[in-house]
Amino acid sequence: MRSINVGLLGLGTVGQALTQLITQSQPTIRVVKALVRHPIRARGVAVRVTTDPDEIVRDPEIDVVVDVMGGQHPAMEILSAAFQHGKDVVTANKEVMTYYGPALQALARQHNRLLLYEASVAGGMPIIDAITHHLSVVPIDRIEGVLNGTCNFILSHMEEGHDYLEALHEAQRLGYAEQNPEADVEGYDTARKLVLLARIGFHTEIPAEFSAITGITGVTGHDVARLASLGCGVRLVGRALCQDQGISLSVAPTVYRQGHPFLRLQGPQNAVQVTSAVGHFLFEGPGAGGLATATSVLSDILRIRQLVPDREPNPMISLTFNEPETPAICFPLDPETPLPQVLPDELRRTSSYAILSCQLPRELAKLWGLRQYAWGEEEGPTIR
Amino acid sequence: MRSINVGLLGLGTVGQALTQLITQSQPTIRVVKALVRHPIRARGVAVRVTTDPDEIVRDPEIDVVVDVMGGQHPAMEILSAAFQHGKDVVTANKEVMTYYGPALQALARQHNRLLLYEASVAGGMPIIDAITHHLSVVPIDRIEGVLNGTCNFILSHMEEGHDYLEALHEAQRLGYAEQNPEADVEGYDTARKLVLLARIGFHTEIPAEFSAITGITGVTGHDVARLASLGCGVRLVGRALCQDQGISLSVAPTVYRQGHPFLRLQGPQNAVQVTSAVGHFLFEGPGAGGLATATSVLSDILRIRQLVPDREPNPMISLTFNEPETPAICFPLDPETPLPQVLPDELRRTSSYAILSCQLPRELAKLWGLRQYAWGEEEGPTIR
Repeated sequence: MRSINVGLLGLGTVGQALTQLITQSQPTIRVVKALVRHPIRARGVAVRVTTDPDEIVRDPEIDVVVDVMGGQHPAMEILSAAFQHGKDVVTANKEVMTYYGPALQALARQHNRLLLYEASVAGGMPIIDAITHHLSVVPIDRIEGVLNGTCNFILSHMEEGHDYLEALHEAQRLGYAEQNPEADVEGYDTARKLVLLARIGFHTEIPAEFSAITGITGVTGHDVARLASLGCGVRLVGRALCQDQGISLSVAPTVYRQGHPFLRLQGPQNAVQVTSAVGHFLFEGPGAGGLATATSVLSDILRIRQLVPDREPNPMISLTFNEPETPAICFPLDPETPLPQVLPDELRRTSSYAILSCQLPRELAKLWGLRQYAWGEEEGPTIR
Repeated sequence: MRSINVGLLGLGTVGQALTQLITQSQPTIRVVKALVRHPIRARGVAVRVTTDPDEIVRDPEIDVVVDVMGGQHPAMEILSAAFQHGKDVVTANKEVMTYYGPALQALARQHNRLLLYEASVAGGMPIIDAITHHLSVVPIDRIEGVLNGTCNFILSHMEEGHDYLEALHEAQRLGYAEQNPEADVEGYDTARKLVLLARIGFHTEIPAEFSAITGITGVTGHDVARLASLGCGVRLVGRALCQDQGISLSVAPTVYRQGHPFLRLQGPQNAVQVTSAVGHFLFEGPGAGGLATATSVLSDILRIRQLVPDREPNPMISLTFNEPETPAICFPLDPETPLPQVLPDELRRTSSYAILSCQLPRELAKLWGLRQYAWGEEEGPTIR
C-alpha cells in the first residue's frame, strides 16, 4: 500500500487530534510537518513545525496538504500554491471553500489534483460525500440542516427557562460560544455551510453570500416558552430549495412540533435532511470536535490513496454469540394469566409485565411461558 | 469523460429503474445488454436481452457487470466469471454478498477489479460507503439498524389495533410481504444485512449465519397495545456489538420509548445508528424501491469511473432569493401587548400569537412589531 506524507496547515484542536489518530491507526501515513503561527508554544504531539508555508507546499516529500487552520486568507493562497506544486488537498475550512471553492476546484482540475473537503460541513458527519456521490444522482428538491452547535446549545438552554443573553453567556463560559459570537448566532456560519451543500446538491454555481439570513439573537425566552406550551420547539435551520422558479436559500429560526428529529439535537450534534425523487433522507452526527473533524479529514486522505481502501480483513476476532445483554420486557404468553411465580420476586414489578435486567435465554423464557422484547435504550421503561 | 458500458444481470424493478435513470441522466453510460430468464416478456425499457450469462461476462464491450437479480446462485458463479474476464462488478444482491462476499472480494483483488455493493443494504441509503470509508476510520462500538420494510409495515399496522396475522395478510394483500414471508418476518433478511454492516464496521471476518435471531412472528397485538400504554413501541432491530469479549450479533423485536427515531419508521424507510469513539450517528432513508436501489447502484458505477466525479457545474441557474414560502408563527415584540390590529382578521387567531400562511417580509414584520419564526413542517401548529 502506497504510503502518504501529509503536510498540515494548522496544529490546533483538529490538527492535534488528526496527528494522534494517524499515529495510532495509520502506519502508512506520516505527518511530516505542520505550519504554525507560534513555533515555541508546546503542543501535545511531536511534529516538526514551521512558520513558512513554502516549507510545506514546496516540500517534495509531502503528497497531501491538509488545511485545518480556517479562514479565507492565507488559506486560499497556500492551497493554490499547493496545487501548483502538485499536491492534493484536503480541507476542513468552510470559509475558504465557500468563498474560493469553485476557483480552487478549477485549479485542482487544471493541475490534475484532488480537492476534498468532507470536514468543512458538519464535522464528523459524512454529508458532503453522501450528497456528492450518492443523493445527487437524482434531482434533489430540498436540503435542510441544523448546522451550528453554538445555536443548538443556546436554544436548548433557553428551553430550560433562560433568556437569550443568559444562555449566550453560559455558552461563552463553557467555551461553546466565542467571545465574539456573531458568526454563529447571526446565522452566517450556517449560511456558509448551506452554500456548500447547495452547490453539490443542485450541481450549480451559487454565490458565497445571500441575504435571507436571520440568526437567533431575536429569539426570546418568552417565545421559547410559548412554543413549548404549543408542543413545539425551535432550531436555527438552513434551508435550500430547488423549485421551478430557481434556487432559494434561507437561514431562520424554525419551529417544529415535538418529536421532529431536529429538536432532539443538543450541542454539537448536527443533522441534515435531504428530499429527492427517491424519498427522504436524514443524517445525524457530531458536527464539531477535534476527533470528529479529524475522522472526516482522515477519510478524505484515505480516499485520495485509493478509490476503495478495501482494507485486508484483520485476523478473525473471537466471535461470540452471547445472548444480548440489553434489558428485556416480558409478557406472559396468555395475556389473561399473571406472570409465573418462578420469576424472582424483585423482578415481578406488575401483575401483567416484568422488566428484567437482561434477556432470558430463549429456552427459559419458553419454559416460563414468557414473550420477551429486547429493550433498546439505556434504561428500561418506568413501572407504573 | 470515459464512457462506461454496463451489462445487467436481471431486468426486474431495479434493473428497469436503473436503465431509465441512466438513459435520462447519464449520457456517457450505456446499458449494453441484460440477462433475463424470459426474453419474450415485454419490458418497459429498450435493452437487448439474453438468457446466456456468457454473453454478458465475455462481451469485450462491457466494462461493468451489474447484479440486480438477487439470490446466491447463479449470481456467485456469474460474478466470479465476470472478474475472470476483467469486469468490475456492482451488486445489489445481499444474499451473494453475505455468503460469498469475502471470496468475491478476494477474487476481485486477484484480478485487480472492483466489487461495490452499496445497494445490498438499505436500498437507497448510502450506509455501506459511510461506514467503510468514513465511520470505521475510528473503532466502532455498536451498529443498530431497522433494515426490513415488511416488518416495519406489519408493526406499524399492529399499532393501529390489528393482530399479527391480520397485519401480515394486509401486507401481503398490498404487495409489501411475499406469499412466503419467512425471510422477512423471521428476521433472516435483517440478519444478512447486519452481517454485511458488521464486516465493514468491525474490519473482521464474520460468518454468514448466526443464531441469535428472533423475528416478529411472536409479537402480539396485546403486547403492542400494552407497550403503547407504557409510552413505548417496538421495531425489529439488528444489533452488532464489539466489546472486550468479542463481537456479538443479534436480531430481535426491540422496545423503544416514544420519540426514539426508530419508531418513526414506516414501511420501506430504514435507519441505522452507529456509535463510535467520535459519537453517535444516525442515517435514515428509503431502504427499498426500484429508484432508491437504482440510485445506489448508479453511484457505485460512477465511483468506478473516478474517485471524484466532480461534475462540471451546470451553467448558472437563475438564483432567486425569495423570502421562504414556509408558513410562519408570529409573536408581538412585547409579550404583554396584543397582536397589532393591522394583521388581517382571519390570521389573528389568538390574542398572543398568529399563524401566517407565509413569512412576512422582514421590514413589514418590524413595522408591525412582530417576531416571526419559520414553520418547518407541512402544517402549522394547531391553534388552541
